[in-house]
Amino acid sequence: MSFRFGPLIIPQSQVFMVSRLSYGLVNLKPAVPGHVLVVSRRPVTRFNDLSADEVTDLFQQGQRVSRLVERVYKADSLALVIQDGKEAGQSVPHVHLHILPRRKADFANNDDIYDELGSRKRVRGVDNDERVPRSAEEMAREAELLRSELGEWSSDASTLSDGRAST
Amino acid sequence: MSFRFGPLIIPQSQVFMVSRLSYGLVNLKPAVPGHVLVVSRRPVTRFNDLSADEVTDLFQQGQRVSRLVERVYKADSLALVIQDGKEAGQSVPHVHLHILPRRKADFANNDDIYDELGSRKRVRGVDNDERVPRSAEEMAREAELLRSELGEWSSDASTLSDGRAST
Repeated sequence: MSFRFGPLIIPQSQVFMVSRLSYGLVNLKPAVPGHVLVVSRRPVTRFNDLSADEVTDLFQQGQRVSRLVERVYKADSLALVIQDGKEAGQSVPHVHLHILPRRKADFANNDDIYDELGSRKRVRGVDNDERVPRSAEEMAREAELLRSELGEWSSDASTLSDGRAST
Repeated sequence: MSFRFGPLIIPQSQVFMVSRLSYGLVNLKPAVPGHVLVVSRRPVTRFNDLSADEVTDLFQQGQRVSRLVERVYKADSLALVIQDGKEAGQSVPHVHLHILPRRKADFANNDDIYDELGSRKRVRGVDNDERVPRSAEEMAREAELLRSELGEWSSDASTLSDGRAST
């Protein structure tokens, strides 16, 4: 099983959730701890390109994942953001929902995260050049934790939780 | 038919879309032209409080409304944002999806809108004190335009498009 994210192929070690039409991906350069993405499995660019089924699955799973990261990262709130198209700061041309657990005082100004998420000068989604990328090992550890908390497949199992063979 | 938005009762003149579980609301202080909200009809605070049906309806309608405002406001992109909880800058304690049509150069720095949407010092959602509120007439005119473009009920009709009597 492989996971496309725009032009990229994402290793399964970085994926913590797989549903019929979406998957959950840890972040190379999270803006806050637990900043994850829920991505449509079909590689389309714009929100409007999603079918009704894909919209439903993305946000049902988005709700499930938001509940997960709020609990695991001991947050009080969440930001949910889709940068839908280039003029909205979308960096990877593939529909993805940012989910960011928020805690009191996680930024000096509580709302700077929107600047952090949005500013071209600083950070844009997952592929900015100014935040230090994490190691593959760190990302795999986080994905394993989230997978385990979510009751998804374990990285040492040969099958995903829904019985599909992993590759 | 009345529409709650947190502690507020929204006049129908400001509502441009009504579905089974959601409604579309024009903005008192839009960050950009066409900045609208899709609101759950049941007044709950957090995204996680929504039922599966409510999540589906909110984002199916969100997709429909995003297509509408992108076309009507001649935009190229969209920002979709939920500030879910106080620490994420949520100002009205009632789940609402911000939909913002984006165009090239609508802000001097294209991504300043996230700061505009997020910053406590400047603008937070719909109830900040620093942006000049629009008149009820201007809001009603915009809602009428969007309603008409969407094929919803007309303000001079006595019934909504789904046949319910308006009040």
